[in-house]
Amino acid sequence: MTLRVGVIGVGVMGADHARNLDRRVGGAAVTVVADHDAERAAAVAGEMRSARAVDDARAVVAADDVDAVLVASHDSTHRDFVLAALDAGKPVLCEKPLAPTAAECRRVVDAEGDRGLVSVGFMRRFDPSYTDLRRLVTSGELGAPLTAHCISRTVQSGPGDSAATITNSAIHELDVLPWLLDSPITEVTWFAGRSSRHSPDRRDPQILVLRTASDVLVTVEVFLNARYGYDTRCEVVGETGSAALTLPARVVVDSDRRRGVEYPPDWIPRYADAYRLQLQAWVDAVAGGGPSSLATAHDGLRAALVADAAVESMTTGRTVAVQYESGEGGQPVR
Amino acid sequence: MTLRVGVIGVGVMGADHARNLDRRVGGAAVTVVADHDAERAAAVAGEMRSARAVDDARAVVAADDVDAVLVASHDSTHRDFVLAALDAGKPVLCEKPLAPTAAECRRVVDAEGDRGLVSVGFMRRFDPSYTDLRRLVTSGELGAPLTAHCISRTVQSGPGDSAATITNSAIHELDVLPWLLDSPITEVTWFAGRSSRHSPDRRDPQILVLRTASDVLVTVEVFLNARYGYDTRCEVVGETGSAALTLPARVVVDSDRRRGVEYPPDWIPRYADAYRLQLQAWVDAVAGGGPSSLATAHDGLRAALVADAAVESMTTGRTVAVQYESGEGGQPVR
Amino acid sequence: MTLRVGVIGVGVMGADHARNLDRRVGGAAVTVVADHDAERAAAVAGEMRSARAVDDARAVVAADDVDAVLVASHDSTHRDFVLAALDAGKPVLCEKPLAPTAAECRRVVDAEGDRGLVSVGFMRRFDPSYTDLRRLVTSGELGAPLTAHCISRTVQSGPGDSAATITNSAIHELDVLPWLLDSPITEVTWFAGRSSRHSPDRRDPQILVLRTASDVLVTVEVFLNARYGYDTRCEVVGETGSAALTLPARVVVDSDRRRGVEYPPDWIPRYADAYRLQLQAWVDAVAGGGPSSLATAHDGLRAALVADAAVESMTTGRTVAVQYESGEGGQPVR
Amino acid sequence: MTLRVGVIGVGVMGADHARNLDRRVGGAAVTVVADHDAERAAAVAGEMRSARAVDDARAVVAADDVDAVLVASHDSTHRDFVLAALDAGKPVLCEKPLAPTAAECRRVVDAEGDRGLVSVGFMRRFDPSYTDLRRLVTSGELGAPLTAHCISRTVQSGPGDSAATITNSAIHELDVLPWLLDSPITEVTWFAGRSSRHSPDRRDPQILVLRTASDVLVTVEVFLNARYGYDTRCEVVGETGSAALTLPARVVVDSDRRRGVEYPPDWIPRYADAYRLQLQAWVDAVAGGGPSSLATAHDGLRAALVADAAVESMTTGRTVAVQYESGEGGQPVR
Repeated sequence: MTLRVGVIGVGVMGADHARNLDRRVGGAAVTVVADHDAERAAAVAGEMRSARAVDDARAVVAADDVDAVLVASHDSTHRDFVLAALDAGKPVLCEKPLAPTAAECRRVVDAEGDRGLVSVGFMRRFDPSYTDLRRLVTSGELGAPLTAHCISRTVQSGPGDSAATITNSAIHELDVLPWLLDSPITEVTWFAGRSSRHSPDRRDPQILVLRTASDVLVTVEVFLNARYGYDTRCEVVGETGSAALTLPARVVVDSDRRRGVEYPPDWIPRYADAYRLQLQAWVDAVAGGGPSSLATAHDGLRAALVADAAVESMTTGRTVAVQYESGEGGQPVR
Repeated sequence: MTLRVGVIGVGVMGADHARNLDRRVGGAAVTVVADHDAERAAAVAGEMRSARAVDDARAVVAADDVDAVLVASHDSTHRDFVLAALDAGKPVLCEKPLAPTAAECRRVVDAEGDRGLVSVGFMRRFDPSYTDLRRLVTSGELGAPLTAHCISRTVQSGPGDSAATITNSAIHELDVLPWLLDSPITEVTWFAGRSSRHSPDRRDPQILVLRTASDVLVTVEVFLNARYGYDTRCEVVGETGSAALTLPARVVVDSDRRRGVEYPPDWIPRYADAYRLQLQAWVDAVAGGGPSSLATAHDGLRAALVADAAVESMTTGRTVAVQYESGEGGQPVR
Repeated sequence: MTLRVGVIGVGVMGADHARNLDRRVGGAAVTVVADHDAERAAAVAGEMRSARAVDDARAVVAADDVDAVLVASHDSTHRDFVLAALDAGKPVLCEKPLAPTAAECRRVVDAEGDRGLVSVGFMRRFDPSYTDLRRLVTSGELGAPLTAHCISRTVQSGPGDSAATITNSAIHELDVLPWLLDSPITEVTWFAGRSSRHSPDRRDPQILVLRTASDVLVTVEVFLNARYGYDTRCEVVGETGSAALTLPARVVVDSDRRRGVEYPPDWIPRYADAYRLQLQAWVDAVAGGGPSSLATAHDGLRAALVADAAVESMTTGRTVAVQYESGEGGQPVR
Repeated sequence: MTLRVGVIGVGVMGADHARNLDRRVGGAAVTVVADHDAERAAAVAGEMRSARAVDDARAVVAADDVDAVLVASHDSTHRDFVLAALDAGKPVLCEKPLAPTAAECRRVVDAEGDRGLVSVGFMRRFDPSYTDLRRLVTSGELGAPLTAHCISRTVQSGPGDSAATITNSAIHELDVLPWLLDSPITEVTWFAGRSSRHSPDRRDPQILVLRTASDVLVTVEVFLNARYGYDTRCEVVGETGSAALTLPARVVVDSDRRRGVEYPPDWIPRYADAYRLQLQAWVDAVAGGGPSSLATAHDGLRAALVADAAVESMTTGRTVAVQYESGEGGQPVR
């Protein structure tokens, strides 16, 4: 009656997932842990209620006491571990991205077929702000959506070039927007102006103008060295009204001539609920044998294709159409 | 490794607790369920991953596969079931109030001794807004607290007289304020003016002016027929700054000439996180064998004593000192 | 066609009034200026479009080219200059308070009779936030008002004892509440707890619980050494809804991990619009020969009587009824 | 000592200006009024403290008792009346636009030479929110500006095609952005997606991506049939922080399960302060003989040139560079 999960990769993100699965989610337990750093694997296993560490990621997939697999290892390894889980016929939740390129994502989609085994960790779909916003958009209360504005700011960037801004950061918007607007993105125009002197190696901020199949125009600002705080904004404008995420602050403080609320320093506190709720939904779905509301391999592929188009627009300075193969764009957005 | 919980009473509140325990909290499972309505007990047991319904609440306490007991039955039965759990030496979480009168609360406190087995469901202590506020107050960032203002409004009252406003509703403020300000309430003055025409049978709104042992003055408005929404506010004013709970809305909507956020209709969505986090903290503490951060039987007694003083002020029109017996007021506030 | 105004007293407040009258209000000009500091009078006169300084305040009242008088001299002189204007039959706008004691206010009321010549500078009645709030309360949209909560905080106090908190600061609430709620205050209970260590010579903060003739209960916190900013709050709670002043900030800033708006440092920027609009309303009314919407001498007396009751409650520790003489409480609130 | 103003055109906007000049601004009076509708001219003249109506707009310019001229007649007549005022050597404040085309604006600029007689009514420069925002941007507190986001929504559009959205509505952003960012706009890309079914005759909403000479990228959404309210937003994002206009609401209301503030129905209440302050600044500058802070003829021309580029981008689907003639772009932004 308890879903036994094997975790591959227990860096910051993977260890957080393991703790959530074992102790903050109902109906699951972590039984096996692997990491390329064996010491780290042992330490995290030791934190669990009853888990063991193994040397080899593939041993996690194969283990008899593993019903389902969570992959949170290095991005470059995602594809192979997901394919291994598919070989073993076990449900697998893979941290985003599903794979670094659209071509590799396609390979996973093909290997999965219609088995519905793969989920991708686009956790914003479980953030209570986003789910409230989507419920409102879907309810029709705002009228048909016409335009949207997204902003994604972080305090400072890690290493990476201008393309990495798209493939690592904007990728969240590229997944969440089709889900929110119920329509795939078909066209991207990339812009950048003056960059922050705090950005050592990439254009920052960048602005994307996206168009969906339903002809909704969306502006997206991604600014990784915004300094002031971790800030996700999203407004959807409909024919009769508009709705936007709030800054989810719980306390307002009056001090030093200001009234204000605090920004989170990074994505971990901002999306703590989303990560927990995503895991719970995954556990519930896998244990119940039904479909989950997590992003699918198709969704992972779709986001990768839009990212490719954005990077091409960056290179060519032109508006670029997203290159869906037959049926890919038209897959219902989950 | 999994804490097995027996649940006594599965009305709205108890069923919600049972579902949370079994499916939204890590490390616990509901194994036995009782309710005076046997059908309801069976239905809730059937929702659990693996639980049985029993006829008799005392059978829950006695069951071998019950490590800990949750009491959510009618207020008038709380005391007896808690005493039964104490007899069995099992940890018990009792929905508030611990008992309808301070005298009965005292009996529980005496029966418990120093065993630390009883927790009381004053869930606001686990609401993320309140915990953030308390962290801020405790940090000293606002300077020493000098005054506070609380507002507790609900859409409409159920049956009850003016005293019930204190003992059922304001009781949450009477518990949370000492916890927030780290000092027991020592004095109460009660006020009421014009009552809402929507209040059939009690003075509504009511205002309390409280004083803590540390000489912080607090105003509390309790208004049960406020109509517009379920609204909990609390501001703590210190020597250098002030901090207040926000309305925890996730989406802001522009429509019909207004920009606004939605109020919850009642306490269930408003305190959903608090209830879940309270249960998780209880499970973690009981399973770990350590002290929990939940309200204790002493806390339950203390709130009841302040409520008694408020009702006396209502009757006499005077400021009333809270009648702590030796040591009761001075117990450290948990 | 232009109202010629003589200004008595051009300290910070009076000079501000003179500049507004001469340069930011339509249909008026300052023609004569007096101050006990002759140099200051000359300097302010020199700033006007065409004004002269005179030695003697009474010469302002007497001057042929003075149609109306503005009194902004020391509080202790208000009464005499207002009486002088009444003797001359000239309209006079007197900064608050009309006089330091209720007895002196009564003398002005008697001297004025039904001539409608005296206005008192309770400028909050012209603050756009307050007028919007009053319009809403009056519209009935919130249902009948049941309770209200006011907060008046300043950065730091000047010299003065606990009673001065009432007579100089809380006096604004004591005037604006009857205007807002359309009912005189009949009863006051005073409270104080722990005082700020930043308050050298008075109880600070203080809390008043007021009751109006219409049985609306109001809590008022006055905190003069609040440090963090100048902050006026007021919420009126009705049978179906509630409305409150906003913090009138025009720009929201994201910086240093916070999203926030700025507090004004003192009353001057906070009430700049109110002062200008009050003067414009006075000029319009005097020039037009009709009644103004400014506070009257009766209003000044009424606020003084409530302040007396608050100070008595401070002394006696009891709830004190306001001592209106025949008809005073019942005067329609303007 | 009083500036005597002649007003040409007293429709809604012109009559509002006349009333402000005569009764809500210091140091001015309206003496002569003209309108193609003689009855309307007479009515508005009758409202003034002392003014006469004349038949012919040119008689306003010529009148001996007119020191300065305000032009608020039909857009198509602006240029000629401004040129007439220039011929007479009288200061003139012209409602926006200075003229319908950039070519006509250029003629005014040439006729004015360096006399500094022409002001253009881009009133947002006097809106207290915008001036606060500009002060902050200029202060360097946010670091160098990198990007900005503007939104301009109205309840419903009047007649007009897609180009009119730019030349009549977006024109305010096209003026205010160079003023705010202290750099002219050099490049425009126009976008539109799905239009509102409430828009009978134009693409609505439209989105512009602008680039300034200083390489700041700006997104502008203009949505004329937004239905929900009149809403101007503007955020400037700098290297260390961000700042944005607030919705200037004075009262927050709790009712019907919502907490909200009201939107203005149109620009008149939203910009009432801006119009008054602009007139006061104009009167002060003209009376004082010094330069004003109002938009100049150069500013009017500059905005028209950017609008031309936006319309060209709409037609061609390409990014379009603004066609400044020698020196025009480089003129310091006022």
